[in-house]
Amino acid sequence: MKRIVTILSAALVLAGTLQAQELANFNFNGPAPVVSPEIQGDSVTFRLKADYATVVKLSGSWMPNPWGDTIDMARGADFVWSVKIPLPPAEIYTYNFIVDGVTVNDPQNIYVQRDGTRYLPMLIVPGERSENYVEATKHGTVSHPWYDSKLLGYSRRLTVYTPYGYEANPKKKYPVLYLLHGAGGDEEAWISMGRTAQILDNLIEKGLAEPMIVVMPNGNPGQRAACTLGLPEIPMDRRDPAVRDSYVKSLCEEIVPFIEKNFRAIAKPSSRAIAGLSMGGGHTIAASILYPELFDYICPLSAAGQATPEQIAALKKAGVKLYFLACGDADFLFEGSKALDKTLTEQGLDHIFYVSDGGHVWSNWRLYLNTFAQKLFK
Amino acid sequence: MKRIVTILSAALVLAGTLQAQELANFNFNGPAPVVSPEIQGDSVTFRLKADYATVVKLSGSWMPNPWGDTIDMARGADFVWSVKIPLPPAEIYTYNFIVDGVTVNDPQNIYVQRDGTRYLPMLIVPGERSENYVEATKHGTVSHPWYDSKLLGYSRRLTVYTPYGYEANPKKKYPVLYLLHGAGGDEEAWISMGRTAQILDNLIEKGLAEPMIVVMPNGNPGQRAACTLGLPEIPMDRRDPAVRDSYVKSLCEEIVPFIEKNFRAIAKPSSRAIAGLSMGGGHTIAASILYPELFDYICPLSAAGQATPEQIAALKKAGVKLYFLACGDADFLFEGSKALDKTLTEQGLDHIFYVSDGGHVWSNWRLYLNTFAQKLFK
Repeated sequence: MKRIVTILSAALVLAGTLQAQELANFNFNGPAPVVSPEIQGDSVTFRLKADYATVVKLSGSWMPNPWGDTIDMARGADFVWSVKIPLPPAEIYTYNFIVDGVTVNDPQNIYVQRDGTRYLPMLIVPGERSENYVEATKHGTVSHPWYDSKLLGYSRRLTVYTPYGYEANPKKKYPVLYLLHGAGGDEEAWISMGRTAQILDNLIEKGLAEPMIVVMPNGNPGQRAACTLGLPEIPMDRRDPAVRDSYVKSLCEEIVPFIEKNFRAIAKPSSRAIAGLSMGGGHTIAASILYPELFDYICPLSAAGQATPEQIAALKKAGVKLYFLACGDADFLFEGSKALDKTLTEQGLDHIFYVSDGGHVWSNWRLYLNTFAQKLFK
Repeated sequence: MKRIVTILSAALVLAGTLQAQELANFNFNGPAPVVSPEIQGDSVTFRLKADYATVVKLSGSWMPNPWGDTIDMARGADFVWSVKIPLPPAEIYTYNFIVDGVTVNDPQNIYVQRDGTRYLPMLIVPGERSENYVEATKHGTVSHPWYDSKLLGYSRRLTVYTPYGYEANPKKKYPVLYLLHGAGGDEEAWISMGRTAQILDNLIEKGLAEPMIVVMPNGNPGQRAACTLGLPEIPMDRRDPAVRDSYVKSLCEEIVPFIEKNFRAIAKPSSRAIAGLSMGGGHTIAASILYPELFDYICPLSAAGQATPEQIAALKKAGVKLYFLACGDADFLFEGSKALDKTLTEQGLDHIFYVSDGGHVWSNWRLYLNTFAQKLFK
């Protein structure tokens, strides 16, 4: 052991003197760093050092109107602006500062979520509601394979979660949940904002959900991959029905076969589930209408979509094990969800209409995933 | 086809009226959006709308001193601040604005790189030097498996690149490059800032590199995973030699066996390469000293490390197919690299000392990977 220590000391002797690009993340000799956000008991304090600012405000996803409400911050010693507020209920929130009218992320907060093209600092408030959103002990694997789409004409990137034990049990096959994002999202939305890996890891570790594969495609037919890769988008009119068709068709005719060929998936309807939020809820409904035999589990969440009585009757005839419709009672799409619930009831299709508080927000979509994932493949 | 269109129109009729969280990324009805950055011929213009700002500056990684230099931006119509500069040479750069003393990312730029705890907008200048940094036609798969470390006492996240064709050729085995990040980085550094997937995809597609697996571990023994996941770091003193030991030992005694068990890797020294930048260069040198039989390809890049004449003699005796030492001539570690080159020469160990322009920056590390990856496993 002593010999190893000596060798490594020689090898790494220069490391202590680094003043390099990657080290800009550290602060070795500067003044005491500003701490933000700081949770203390039932309050949380946000701080930002801004020497020349005139007005600094805080915006947060827990506020009644997250897209307009702000709270003024006050300037203290050393030009550190701060505000202390009551701790919101257990959940993952995002927030940012507004400095003289410009949106600024919290430079002290290393926990960042990506939502579409925006990167937002997280406030994780621990508690029962968020207990499955943090890391479990045993982790599944998240991967990003590309599938060749003949329908769209190019390779497209997927996000795939395989549960803990997938590698160690090379004979075992798994059911598959296809989980679709909303407008403005991409194949990274559910894994970042949605905390899919953490939620599934926790539910599976606790024995509350079946071990399953989760496939998160990119629902924008003009995108080959999330913009994080720097690939320019192929211009397409999202409102053109043929464009919308192309993705749902690629999902059901290309992605499902790709997954069942390249992953150890159980290739039958009773082992396939489809769920999606907002635009992805519309895709979910559309897939269930166009391919009624493909999925036995159908979960539209805060869905931008409808189905006719005839379409629901056809779906009932095809056989459905679970139809889980979810929406927040303050969601601008709540009336649409109520209308779909009514059609489902009138057509006698057994279903769950899960109504939560709140609106069209990620806190609801995490809650819905955490809820319906426990009902799949049982 | 017509029937499909009608069904989807019904299912998605509500999508056009969405005013939702994910849609905040779009701008349907507002004023013409600000464009930034805008490359026109041999110049590039940066723009930021900042209604109440007093001073707005631009900072960029192409500037002579990227950590201190700034350029003033001028306020134009509608409070849009801008500056037009000569286009820097082909490369991927990062930049940000400084608004009244506060660092601000470019809200118009959807291409963002993650470097440790910082998210930075990219400026991609096309040209020969950067041609392998953009997406190829055929894509490998990037995955994030976790390995159980007995030495460190917890599961830790890896980034693994498998080349295009890995899934379609289930009998084929591949050589493996272990690619290590520097201080301040983590298992996402090489895949984000380093463009590893793009570089390997391009080199393999052009027939310039052997198809290989690339494993990018987390070199911070106190981290289970990149901070993007929200896992708190386990406090450890990085300067404690035992802490540094623990990672190099885990790499060679745990990660290498994990990869060779769970991926189709060729498990012999002539199919193993190790490379790393800065602190990871120190880890590379340390691993080659402690486990001289393990890797036949050794590539310290801008390395924080040294080896004694006796250690190099032992390595020579063990047999090395390629020793590729690289450093920029303006790097603060250049003297150390020259000293190591001298020791290698004196001990008669055949090697390449690749000296580039510039300093301790990602543009060099991408260049080095793009260079030495073509020399591996041949």
